[in-house]
Amino acid sequence: MNILVINSGSSSLKYQLYNMTDESVLAKGLVERIGMDSSILNHKPTGKQEVTEVSEILEHNTAIRKVLACLTDKEHGVISSIDEINAVGHRVVHGGEFFKASALVDADAKTKIRQLFDLAPLHNPAAVMGISATEVNMPGVPQVVVFDTAFHQTMPEKAYMYAIPRVLYNKYKVRRYGAHGTSHDFVSKAAAEFLDRPLEDLKIITCHIGNGASVTAVDGGLSVDTSMGMTPLEGLMMGTRSGDLDPAVVPYVMNKEELSVGEVNSMLNKHSGLLAISGVSSDMRDIIDGAEKGEPNSTLAFDMYEYRLRKYIGSYAAAMNGVDVIVFTAGVGENAAVLRAKVLNNLTFLGIELDAEANKVRSGDPRRISTAESKVQVLVVPTNEELVIARDTYRIVQGING
Amino acid sequence: MNILVINSGSSSLKYQLYNMTDESVLAKGLVERIGMDSSILNHKPTGKQEVTEVSEILEHNTAIRKVLACLTDKEHGVISSIDEINAVGHRVVHGGEFFKASALVDADAKTKIRQLFDLAPLHNPAAVMGISATEVNMPGVPQVVVFDTAFHQTMPEKAYMYAIPRVLYNKYKVRRYGAHGTSHDFVSKAAAEFLDRPLEDLKIITCHIGNGASVTAVDGGLSVDTSMGMTPLEGLMMGTRSGDLDPAVVPYVMNKEELSVGEVNSMLNKHSGLLAISGVSSDMRDIIDGAEKGEPNSTLAFDMYEYRLRKYIGSYAAAMNGVDVIVFTAGVGENAAVLRAKVLNNLTFLGIELDAEANKVRSGDPRRISTAESKVQVLVVPTNEELVIARDTYRIVQGING
Repeated sequence: MNILVINSGSSSLKYQLYNMTDESVLAKGLVERIGMDSSILNHKPTGKQEVTEVSEILEHNTAIRKVLACLTDKEHGVISSIDEINAVGHRVVHGGEFFKASALVDADAKTKIRQLFDLAPLHNPAAVMGISATEVNMPGVPQVVVFDTAFHQTMPEKAYMYAIPRVLYNKYKVRRYGAHGTSHDFVSKAAAEFLDRPLEDLKIITCHIGNGASVTAVDGGLSVDTSMGMTPLEGLMMGTRSGDLDPAVVPYVMNKEELSVGEVNSMLNKHSGLLAISGVSSDMRDIIDGAEKGEPNSTLAFDMYEYRLRKYIGSYAAAMNGVDVIVFTAGVGENAAVLRAKVLNNLTFLGIELDAEANKVRSGDPRRISTAESKVQVLVVPTNEELVIARDTYRIVQGING
Repeated sequence: MNILVINSGSSSLKYQLYNMTDESVLAKGLVERIGMDSSILNHKPTGKQEVTEVSEILEHNTAIRKVLACLTDKEHGVISSIDEINAVGHRVVHGGEFFKASALVDADAKTKIRQLFDLAPLHNPAAVMGISATEVNMPGVPQVVVFDTAFHQTMPEKAYMYAIPRVLYNKYKVRRYGAHGTSHDFVSKAAAEFLDRPLEDLKIITCHIGNGASVTAVDGGLSVDTSMGMTPLEGLMMGTRSGDLDPAVVPYVMNKEELSVGEVNSMLNKHSGLLAISGVSSDMRDIIDGAEKGEPNSTLAFDMYEYRLRKYIGSYAAAMNGVDVIVFTAGVGENAAVLRAKVLNNLTFLGIELDAEANKVRSGDPRRISTAESKVQVLVVPTNEELVIARDTYRIVQGING
């Protein structure tokens, strides 16, 4: 069975075609600048020459048609007909309280995703465009939606409720939802497998550290707390996001600088984080370079980033009354050895013993960076959100066929 | 030497007269409803009958005059003349970055306290009223200002900076300041003394849990992090304050409910916390009663409160790479044994061993509530902010006289 995984943004569309027999990737690619001048389609068929096309792609409908044409193309295609795609899995950012797991796309699911536009105004409408475009171009092919929030729906009320008037939860569903759920789910399962220990017995803290970043407490395989909140702004310091902040700073700054709701959101989401403190970049590689050269702003940015990540790890150890495994994943988590070393060397009180050499190794495979004897085992596990989407889609489609 | 300690609110004035020879309290009292109809002065001279007077007190000036009259009254006074008061110590909420310690009141100090009105719009103006009223009524008597923020001025930059554009720090000094500094300072020193161990060697987490509440990481006697932020809104869930919250919830709610900056501040400071979740009370005693009766909203309020406090303890253990001592203080911290038990029984991974019987004892003295063998020692230390103010005042006034 072949499954096409689609991640629709407002002006982009990422895809990956899986052969589920061996979970191999047949092709992957990206359409950028949808709706703008000179859209770009970059197609990478496995074992064949990469192709880049520049053309006018005004909507997601056209984007999908072009992707399907690439996938079935005589020269750089990987299948001979669209019929060889058995199902499509879509990444959807926000599943609210409706979706506690991945789901088959039907009228009800679409209605619910639309009802959540308010909580994910940039992302959920894009997902709906991707779903509709798929329906048009591949009528009758089953579609599955996989949510960034679903894994966190197991959080207890004490972890997801904010201490604000309840009417805001009742009317608008203001609460913690979290994000990166497919990644936290994937790496926590992979960690248990790597250690050959039952997931049910483990207290795991997963650190998904990319441009966006979140930490999750996974107790017995279930998310019991996560650092992102109602929106992806809360929690860790990120590339351009502030993370945690005295909530009173928001109205204070709006008042002082005469900012609108939109402007303060933009400030906190796009002009804060590493970028604001370093003054030079939102990219951890640049920050580390700057810090290594002794540049004071980059040094502070790095120190704040490390310190806040470390505090979340301590906080979630307290949430679960212990921690057995810490996992690092995503761009920064998988690659920034110097960040991991600083975090872990400052957490020796938990019984963590870093293996400094192992921490320096770069690899695409799950690996241990603590000593084997370390009381808390620390792993780097490359994440694979597309594979989780493909697997969920496969499982659900098998279910309806079986 | 006798020292008068004054805590001026916008419509209230608390006072306490100390004899510094033995740090005994000669009298204490409270003026309420200043500037309103029928102000109330409640005066408690040690070893004499308590007095309550209802009269019109339109300003702090009058309040101080009445307090001095009470203190020197033939019948319920404790000194024979105002001249027996050698110095006055004032509590001031916000010392900004100007005051890293208590200071003698002079023109410069007053200017600086005024420059901080913007950061403490309710509290600092009241303090200035108290200082001016003292000058008028006790000309020539030295005055000292003791700040809630000063103890936290040792925090490193990585702990006090927010990850938002630096211009906000440069223009408005937006950063973490913390509060309850005199209390965190007092109980951490008292804890080291109780344990007969050098403060310099200890990693202490102090939990000042009253109607307002904050946690501080005290490393070697210095505050290295604290949960309150630029304002007292950040951090723990409190009686009527939200504590930590996704900063994006603020503009979201302002937009949805059409709230002004003032209204959203009022909502988060006065209508949130225990009150909002329980729906019945901001008082932890009522919440515990409700939870013990199985009332679901009080149960959730209690669980959230405990959970968030516990996470801060874990977070600050990570901040210091370990913790030797945890101290509970202030109204809730000193009295809510059931809260302390739940927090501590969920932190056994730190090596905490609660002494369940000792935890139930009520007393006005510092006491241990962990076992003597517990890896982390846990104490209850009654706080005494007035005594810290009196001591600082004494020390500084001795300095100018000596």
